[in-house]
Amino acid sequence: MGKSGGFTSMADAKASGHVPEVGVGMLGYAFMGKAHSHAMLNIPHMMYPPPAIPRLVAIAGRNEGAVKEAQKRYGYESYYTDWKKMLRDDRIQLFDNGGPNDAHAAPSIAAARAGKHVLCEKPLGRTAAESKKMRDAVGETGVKNMVAFNYRFVPAIRQIRKLVDSGLLGQIYHFRGVYLQEWIMPHYGTPMIWRLQKDQAGSGALGDLGAHIIDLARYLVGEIGSVQAMTKTFIKERPRGDGTMGTVDVDDAFASVVEFENGALGTLEASRFAAGRKNGQRIEINAEKASIVFNLERLNELEVFWVGDEPKETQGFRNVLVSEGYHPWWENWWPQGHMIGWEHTFVHEISHLLDCIVNDRPVSPIGADFEDGYRAAVVCDAVVNSADKGRRVQCKYE
Amino acid sequence: MGKSGGFTSMADAKASGHVPEVGVGMLGYAFMGKAHSHAMLNIPHMMYPPPAIPRLVAIAGRNEGAVKEAQKRYGYESYYTDWKKMLRDDRIQLFDNGGPNDAHAAPSIAAARAGKHVLCEKPLGRTAAESKKMRDAVGETGVKNMVAFNYRFVPAIRQIRKLVDSGLLGQIYHFRGVYLQEWIMPHYGTPMIWRLQKDQAGSGALGDLGAHIIDLARYLVGEIGSVQAMTKTFIKERPRGDGTMGTVDVDDAFASVVEFENGALGTLEASRFAAGRKNGQRIEINAEKASIVFNLERLNELEVFWVGDEPKETQGFRNVLVSEGYHPWWENWWPQGHMIGWEHTFVHEISHLLDCIVNDRPVSPIGADFEDGYRAAVVCDAVVNSADKGRRVQCKYE
Amino acid sequence: MGKSGGFTSMADAKASGHVPEVGVGMLGYAFMGKAHSHAMLNIPHMMYPPPAIPRLVAIAGRNEGAVKEAQKRYGYESYYTDWKKMLRDDRIQLFDNGGPNDAHAAPSIAAARAGKHVLCEKPLGRTAAESKKMRDAVGETGVKNMVAFNYRFVPAIRQIRKLVDSGLLGQIYHFRGVYLQEWIMPHYGTPMIWRLQKDQAGSGALGDLGAHIIDLARYLVGEIGSVQAMTKTFIKERPRGDGTMGTVDVDDAFASVVEFENGALGTLEASRFAAGRKNGQRIEINAEKASIVFNLERLNELEVFWVGDEPKETQGFRNVLVSEGYHPWWENWWPQGHMIGWEHTFVHEISHLLDCIVNDRPVSPIGADFEDGYRAAVVCDAVVNSADKGRRVQCKYE
Amino acid sequence: MGKSGGFTSMADAKASGHVPEVGVGMLGYAFMGKAHSHAMLNIPHMMYPPPAIPRLVAIAGRNEGAVKEAQKRYGYESYYTDWKKMLRDDRIQLFDNGGPNDAHAAPSIAAARAGKHVLCEKPLGRTAAESKKMRDAVGETGVKNMVAFNYRFVPAIRQIRKLVDSGLLGQIYHFRGVYLQEWIMPHYGTPMIWRLQKDQAGSGALGDLGAHIIDLARYLVGEIGSVQAMTKTFIKERPRGDGTMGTVDVDDAFASVVEFENGALGTLEASRFAAGRKNGQRIEINAEKASIVFNLERLNELEVFWVGDEPKETQGFRNVLVSEGYHPWWENWWPQGHMIGWEHTFVHEISHLLDCIVNDRPVSPIGADFEDGYRAAVVCDAVVNSADKGRRVQCKYE
Repeated sequence: MGKSGGFTSMADAKASGHVPEVGVGMLGYAFMGKAHSHAMLNIPHMMYPPPAIPRLVAIAGRNEGAVKEAQKRYGYESYYTDWKKMLRDDRIQLFDNGGPNDAHAAPSIAAARAGKHVLCEKPLGRTAAESKKMRDAVGETGVKNMVAFNYRFVPAIRQIRKLVDSGLLGQIYHFRGVYLQEWIMPHYGTPMIWRLQKDQAGSGALGDLGAHIIDLARYLVGEIGSVQAMTKTFIKERPRGDGTMGTVDVDDAFASVVEFENGALGTLEASRFAAGRKNGQRIEINAEKASIVFNLERLNELEVFWVGDEPKETQGFRNVLVSEGYHPWWENWWPQGHMIGWEHTFVHEISHLLDCIVNDRPVSPIGADFEDGYRAAVVCDAVVNSADKGRRVQCKYE
Repeated sequence: MGKSGGFTSMADAKASGHVPEVGVGMLGYAFMGKAHSHAMLNIPHMMYPPPAIPRLVAIAGRNEGAVKEAQKRYGYESYYTDWKKMLRDDRIQLFDNGGPNDAHAAPSIAAARAGKHVLCEKPLGRTAAESKKMRDAVGETGVKNMVAFNYRFVPAIRQIRKLVDSGLLGQIYHFRGVYLQEWIMPHYGTPMIWRLQKDQAGSGALGDLGAHIIDLARYLVGEIGSVQAMTKTFIKERPRGDGTMGTVDVDDAFASVVEFENGALGTLEASRFAAGRKNGQRIEINAEKASIVFNLERLNELEVFWVGDEPKETQGFRNVLVSEGYHPWWENWWPQGHMIGWEHTFVHEISHLLDCIVNDRPVSPIGADFEDGYRAAVVCDAVVNSADKGRRVQCKYE
Repeated sequence: MGKSGGFTSMADAKASGHVPEVGVGMLGYAFMGKAHSHAMLNIPHMMYPPPAIPRLVAIAGRNEGAVKEAQKRYGYESYYTDWKKMLRDDRIQLFDNGGPNDAHAAPSIAAARAGKHVLCEKPLGRTAAESKKMRDAVGETGVKNMVAFNYRFVPAIRQIRKLVDSGLLGQIYHFRGVYLQEWIMPHYGTPMIWRLQKDQAGSGALGDLGAHIIDLARYLVGEIGSVQAMTKTFIKERPRGDGTMGTVDVDDAFASVVEFENGALGTLEASRFAAGRKNGQRIEINAEKASIVFNLERLNELEVFWVGDEPKETQGFRNVLVSEGYHPWWENWWPQGHMIGWEHTFVHEISHLLDCIVNDRPVSPIGADFEDGYRAAVVCDAVVNSADKGRRVQCKYE
Repeated sequence: MGKSGGFTSMADAKASGHVPEVGVGMLGYAFMGKAHSHAMLNIPHMMYPPPAIPRLVAIAGRNEGAVKEAQKRYGYESYYTDWKKMLRDDRIQLFDNGGPNDAHAAPSIAAARAGKHVLCEKPLGRTAAESKKMRDAVGETGVKNMVAFNYRFVPAIRQIRKLVDSGLLGQIYHFRGVYLQEWIMPHYGTPMIWRLQKDQAGSGALGDLGAHIIDLARYLVGEIGSVQAMTKTFIKERPRGDGTMGTVDVDDAFASVVEFENGALGTLEASRFAAGRKNGQRIEINAEKASIVFNLERLNELEVFWVGDEPKETQGFRNVLVSEGYHPWWENWWPQGHMIGWEHTFVHEISHLLDCIVNDRPVSPIGADFEDGYRAAVVCDAVVNSADKGRRVQCKYE
């Protein structure tokens, strides 16, 4: 990590006034390509001074017209229609994989073997086995690796983790996580898409939404020991572009009960069949001294109940606006009450990764590394297995 | 108050096991007649042991069929079609005036002069002058007198007053009170009714809804010094029962800015033209150490923000469920979280009045007496005057 | 059911002006004794005209001092310290069983065999087997029987059922039910009590809170087919009154995933270890055309999202104040926005039962009968079995 | 406006693929300098294709060290310590005035006279007279002029305006606007700053917060006709940097009642003494067919009640997530439910101004021009006058 110039902390980097550059090669120009590129364009002036300046070297994608347009839009210096060629570009130190799920493993492994640091969108692999292969192959190279579980970078979520670490919550009894969306319900008329096909997506709501919930469960409560689950596919056939019908072979929804290794009891659920839930991720922790609730549709807020609050006549869930200078990452933004949005999670996430790269820090636990990505995949697999077999499945992390 | 049997406190009465009776004569059998009668039927077993048993002696009203039905429904021992006759009934110690606004003054004064304690629905009189006459005439007799500002008896409101009295809030800067309903809007097709005629109602939203807000402002913050106001009548003519059109000569809405004698700044507003607001009373206090919000449509809740809350990362408005055994009047009800309703305010209110009667205690400040009723009327008059004259009007209490 | 005087409907009874009496014998004077007695004292004037007047004949309990006090408080004509003797009282037509769980079976069965209609608190029996015995024994007698699943009688819940029955919701995909309380957490210092002992309570949070959720799931979605579950006991020993420690052998919490017979996926969970949740029952339904949310701590409200709402720019969850004259049971109460409380569920419930008794109507589906009580118990047993065995358990209704 | 290359609409510009540049000269590098610069850096890739590319030519400020740092941070090509010199820079077509209130008039007028388009932070001038001078002087030059009332560019606010324009709301009866903050309360220990001095700020909460509310009232309801108001200064002396005490000669809070020219009744209020209110702007409209509520601390949401909603049993305020592709400006952002923040208002605002510049469109009514800024200042002055004189003051627009 010679790029870091010998700085031992982001504070050092900021103090020195010397800001290194990290050349980025981006795979994908759709939703995640947009979100990541936008973040990289904001880091230099908003995380100021930044740990490093992301230099937008190249963007890759199969559709040349689209990738050229993206290159122009975000200001990448060049473009590739073959990610393998991009990985030979010496200007690139960080490979950012925003491709679909079936394009996570091979490019990420190849990038690492080419000496590039790797940021991969979630879920890491389509299965625990694929994820393990990625973790192992990338791990052997020594590059920094990160899975884009961006919700760890919501200030409110990071604040919960800080409360957990402080010990103020005491023993955690319950974790309740649901992630609900609606965009493949009948009134949307959604056709067959890659996210509904197992070979491309790995799983359905489980890997797309559930993986986030599982990562948050692990981040905030601890390792998951065992799982009892069911899955559902409500609409089994959808029209393909060519007019034929295709079979949906992933879950539209799953629901599970889990036991954490520390004895906490959890429920984890996700669905794309919840009318009115646009991005309805909601988590709740019930602990010995406090309860905490987070709702992604109001991501600047937390609800916190403390059992010891005084005066007791006014005990109640506190509705916290997470927007003060002392809240995580808020020193970079605006005065209190001037809210930030969903996209800001990527600014924090990629900034953290840049800091890890130039200052040789561990990605986890602030961010999720490939080990975290693998462990989330083990839980996803356990959900599928438990649903299939109708029994409790132990999570085996290897 | 010989009825009290020499008890010096409700605790004494409860301890002794002797529960006196107070004979009640009720005027009115509509909305308020129902609410008050219901409360009196619940006091004996719910405010247990009660300070006194309300004995339902008689109910009065002009429509004999209706008053007989009400007698039967609530179990009154007898009925009258003439309240003057009812006031000669020796079994009655408490006259409960639930008649329309133009039937507040004469019966209440006559009752007091007949030696009956008086509970009168709000607003006390139709004007400050009428209210003053009532206060003076009733005051001379020495009977207990109360105006049914029942929202003082919402546990959450009583809790706010206790917080104010505790000194924990520090200086109060702001009071914000609105009371919004919708039931005379165009889509209701409301015809001309007594509440829309000045000679019968005195005023419109002002006396009906605004008087509550004004009383709460006085109860929670202090005396109102001066007023700047505007009023509005959005629909000026409405159909009478006989097919002709009648002129609405009261306000459909008012809005005002007030200065409290202690320097706090207030806004007071009421309207019957607020779509979707069924019983939308909302008050907010901003003080040196705390802010407090109450919403009548969620009357079991309070929102309280303390500037000193720790840990500061979790400061926020506390959503308080006012339903613990240590909250006002809750020892009489249910376990925490088992909510009570609007009607319970009357149980608390009349129970308090019975306690004042049998144990010779002051009605105010826990409840509102005729002095409070008069002072609210002075503010109502100031609102009308300020709106008419387009200038700040001082409230003169005499 | 000769008592009904030949009326064929409550409307008939109301129209006739003739209101029959139903003599009630109450077992228990604590929490449920208070709630039921209060309801019976309010039915005559609030459900006016009532289907029948509950005549408070007798109350029974083992502690003579306490039962005498309760007799006096609620105005029962007599008291018994032995429920068997009470069942020989000819004035009684309805036996109301508000005793602890281990006193549900024998008295209810005996009452039915003595020709009394039976209202039994939930859960019906401590196990499915005991519940089945009760259903069978009581069923043979032909008396009206009801389990006090009072949340069916929250107007908002009844409104949901009406929406389900209307077909407007379309296919139901998800049901999510949690019931959270906090009163046995460490900071309460709760000792060993009957609710924490299996022989007396049957189960813990499961039978106490979970049974409600299970009944609502059945009431609103349909029969439950199979269950995957886990249970937890966080505090395994608690002090007895005599200073020794007793072992808690019931669940402090359970969490489960269920499949409904109609294909819907559900999560059902209850805990007494959820800080800040006083009476935190929350249910959510996601259906083809709508989603609906109910929260018991705000029992006068519903949240409803319709996928077809226009204009689409203003689609969103509607926060419904269930307080209009056209909402279930509201014609009996107050003007819109004048909220009712938890206790009112019992007024509706017992009024319904009286109507069923005097007009010979079926208790279910508006209320829950012993068949419903038994089926809820089958699900409770399936939860325990699934947790014990670590596998999916089919619900077998016999 | 030769820069526009003859495009007659943004759609044209987008279609052509030719994107003109507009050179920007920024005055101020603090809060607003950061917010505006950030927006300009995001327009090129997020409002894609943008109506024009803002070219960051120069930034000006008196403190050379600070302005150089800002130049570097946001990537301006050059910097000035004298705004007069910057106005001679031919590369600049748009002068962006983010200076303090007493630096609004002279630089804005000079810029216009130098042929630069002008964007000026709010309030326009410190008084109506100063604002009028600005409007007149700038108006004579024919340049595009805009006042940065950025809340017009919250998608939810723009959506309200669209609903108003659609006629669906019917007659508007009420507007209720409050803007509450807390950052000069005693527990903050705020010293004397420029915002608390009349010669620099013009007014206190009134011009800072109230001006926003006034602009929204005008934008959503219509012209304000007359005002009744009070103002308050709760802390009259504050410490200066040199240890002496300075006198606060602006309002800490104001409250007013206004009558709109169309007959609607309004209340407008702002305070910096509202504990717990971080950025507590809340507006409510009550109209014939609907009510609408907006809360800036939840800026992605609207509450909307329609009187005609069906089925009526589910009428209620709809909680709208304003985050669909068909909501204002949302096509540029993320999938539904992926929320945006406060800063995005400036992206929309400056993008709109660029469109007006290059395509020669009117700034108002989508944005606020200097005429709007002047009219808001007239209302501000009326508030001060009404409070001073204790009478209703007519707003005179000249």
